[in-house]
Amino acid sequence: MAKPHILVLGAGFAGATFCKKIDTSRYDVTLVDRQNHHLFQPLLYQVASSGLAVPEIAQPIRMMLSRKRGLKILMDEAKSINLDQNLVEFSNRKIEYDYLVIGLGAVTSYFGHPEWERYAPGLKSIKDATTIRRNILYAYEKAEGETNPEKRRELMTTVVIGGGPTGVELAGAFIELAQHVLARDYTEINPAEAKVILIEAGPKLLGHMHPKLSESALRQLEGMGVDVRLNTMVQDIRHHEVVLKDMAIKAGNIIWGAGVAANPITNSLSIKVDRGGRIPVLPDLSLPGFPNAFALGDVVSLVDPKGQKVPGVSPAAIQMGQFTAKLFNNDDIKETLEERPEYVYWDKGMMATIGRSKAVAQSGKLRFSGFPAWLAWLFIHLLFLVGFRNKAFVLAQWIYHYFTYRRGARIIHSSEDLDNANGKEMEEPKPKD
Amino acid sequence: MAKPHILVLGAGFAGATFCKKIDTSRYDVTLVDRQNHHLFQPLLYQVASSGLAVPEIAQPIRMMLSRKRGLKILMDEAKSINLDQNLVEFSNRKIEYDYLVIGLGAVTSYFGHPEWERYAPGLKSIKDATTIRRNILYAYEKAEGETNPEKRRELMTTVVIGGGPTGVELAGAFIELAQHVLARDYTEINPAEAKVILIEAGPKLLGHMHPKLSESALRQLEGMGVDVRLNTMVQDIRHHEVVLKDMAIKAGNIIWGAGVAANPITNSLSIKVDRGGRIPVLPDLSLPGFPNAFALGDVVSLVDPKGQKVPGVSPAAIQMGQFTAKLFNNDDIKETLEERPEYVYWDKGMMATIGRSKAVAQSGKLRFSGFPAWLAWLFIHLLFLVGFRNKAFVLAQWIYHYFTYRRGARIIHSSEDLDNANGKEMEEPKPKD
Repeated sequence: MAKPHILVLGAGFAGATFCKKIDTSRYDVTLVDRQNHHLFQPLLYQVASSGLAVPEIAQPIRMMLSRKRGLKILMDEAKSINLDQNLVEFSNRKIEYDYLVIGLGAVTSYFGHPEWERYAPGLKSIKDATTIRRNILYAYEKAEGETNPEKRRELMTTVVIGGGPTGVELAGAFIELAQHVLARDYTEINPAEAKVILIEAGPKLLGHMHPKLSESALRQLEGMGVDVRLNTMVQDIRHHEVVLKDMAIKAGNIIWGAGVAANPITNSLSIKVDRGGRIPVLPDLSLPGFPNAFALGDVVSLVDPKGQKVPGVSPAAIQMGQFTAKLFNNDDIKETLEERPEYVYWDKGMMATIGRSKAVAQSGKLRFSGFPAWLAWLFIHLLFLVGFRNKAFVLAQWIYHYFTYRRGARIIHSSEDLDNANGKEMEEPKPKD
Repeated sequence: MAKPHILVLGAGFAGATFCKKIDTSRYDVTLVDRQNHHLFQPLLYQVASSGLAVPEIAQPIRMMLSRKRGLKILMDEAKSINLDQNLVEFSNRKIEYDYLVIGLGAVTSYFGHPEWERYAPGLKSIKDATTIRRNILYAYEKAEGETNPEKRRELMTTVVIGGGPTGVELAGAFIELAQHVLARDYTEINPAEAKVILIEAGPKLLGHMHPKLSESALRQLEGMGVDVRLNTMVQDIRHHEVVLKDMAIKAGNIIWGAGVAANPITNSLSIKVDRGGRIPVLPDLSLPGFPNAFALGDVVSLVDPKGQKVPGVSPAAIQMGQFTAKLFNNDDIKETLEERPEYVYWDKGMMATIGRSKAVAQSGKLRFSGFPAWLAWLFIHLLFLVGFRNKAFVLAQWIYHYFTYRRGARIIHSSEDLDNANGKEMEEPKPKD
């Protein structure tokens, strides 16, 4: 008898965990991802700020799952999901399934302003991170050769939009880069005079954390020299300019860390998704009306049986991958949904790093900030980093940075280098059609 | 009294060494490079073959020279050199000089067939290396999903053109990647069946080395499974096809390692350059008729006073940088050229690595091959790698690869990913205008 075929879309935390745990002696499993690598997203901001090299936070999917016999891996991009026909269309092929696992993650969302993307990149992919790294480093190179003081100030100003973990981590990393790493490298400019402005629409940073930690994060960032502006709405974003209610800020770099939405492919589903494109799964993580299809991780909108709104964070994605694999391995895929177990989010806590020896963390009633939170952050991120090699190399990098304040990944490389060096970079980019 | 101004073009081995050694208390020095990093070119092939990450072989110029007070560094691209007016035009500015040091290096040359470039990338820059890495890895991904056996064989065939050090190193690295690193990672294809073909127009590999070592390199490569074809002229290169005299080879990847020429900017000089664009410098490395302008490294064509044709290798570039800095520091820049010292190439030997525990090396009358040559190669390349951080990290990578046969830098990332995944990659690329 042929084994049932499970098709897994996406090798992020959810899909990769599912594939690691699923019993391939009882199921044929095909994993398809647009990329050849699994990305450790929580450290992406360190690539953007020149702290880590790309291969240190990414691992080839085939290498990560090479011990999994009978798992078929393909590199392709899902174009539409046909739940009624048990079929997914990719760029280069169609694949039928008995069971479907959707782990396609999230993308940057500009809240109805897609035109802002070209002026304010988000941080969801390796390409985003290397683009931001290049733009930031290149702005200092341009400032060094710029004679107009106003233009120079503009180039040395970075605006980060969004006071969530991504925004806080980026703002802290950028001010450190300017004040400690680059400070002595230039003769005409002093990068220590660079400005980093963090804009948050709400009344506090890290809105999902305890108010004391939000307050602590604010103090730590301000202590490092970040200009934090709370209760500040962005009205518009243009080329090198952020427009607020009563003023405009000129900035050589603008980074968007304010919002994410589910992978837009969810809009091709025959079921209703929420405003952010997230799939309202049932308690067993299956799709309403399609008990053979599951969604995990950041594409999911779910309030669990304990009443917790499950957040779009990597621990939740990993847990969902484990939960669903167990469902299959334990033969809990019953005909009647009522007999299936329900997923309960285990909230282990939350943390955000701010800079060297600076962070905030909470777990249950415990709250840390400063050095202890930072150590906890280091430890946990190393622990979950996939692969021994990556752990060892990232740890070595961090130790090196800690003691030397140097960051070796400050490499500007890409096909756009030449165009930039040709002086075209100050022109307004052309709208994409 | 104002200090004389030395303008240095290029932060490769020649320019960077010059800047390290020049006495900035007596000269104002401006270093301009198109990139923000110095590249350790001898290890570029390891990035192309997924062994090392980019920041491990590149170092930010400002970081490398951060201890050099009074050195001004700019990121810009030289567009033309006006020797008569002591002026260089860049993309964004013009700079006058009292003394000029040209260290602009070499580019890939297709011997009058520039149209081959788009089918057979060379290996001179980080972009070249990441392009080759992406194309090779992606060919296996495509082969895994390809049902046509002929197409599949094509995707799994790599042709390397040129049997010099670059070609030998690439061919060895690619066959190792296929046979050891990727071998167990796929379910549909067996990368160990991949073909690597090395084509050399002359009668032996590594033509500049002792015939016994050329013979040894051939045996080592063939022992690893590389199909080496000597005395074989390439007639034409097309999309996925290399045309020889009596046959054509279909190949998913074609790499050009057959020729280099000086940076084409040398054609803007008011002096005559050789067929490869190299500047025929005088024995003191100054330009004929322009005693205040010097050229160093791969842009130079020179037979030294001992009758040695100075090769385009990094030791020669480093030596020329040291020699010229000394000329300035010792006040040997006399009015009459006859009083200046002459540069003599110190040939410390030559080596090429072929694979794990496989290499050839010669120094004077000493010749090594196999494991001792490989160890010598490792040691020397680590020694000259710029910066403690890079040495430590590259050594760690090499030890890791040696014992695990794994290469973590197998990351496909670039803006072209999506286009590839969309299935457009098999179309013939459009000619650039």
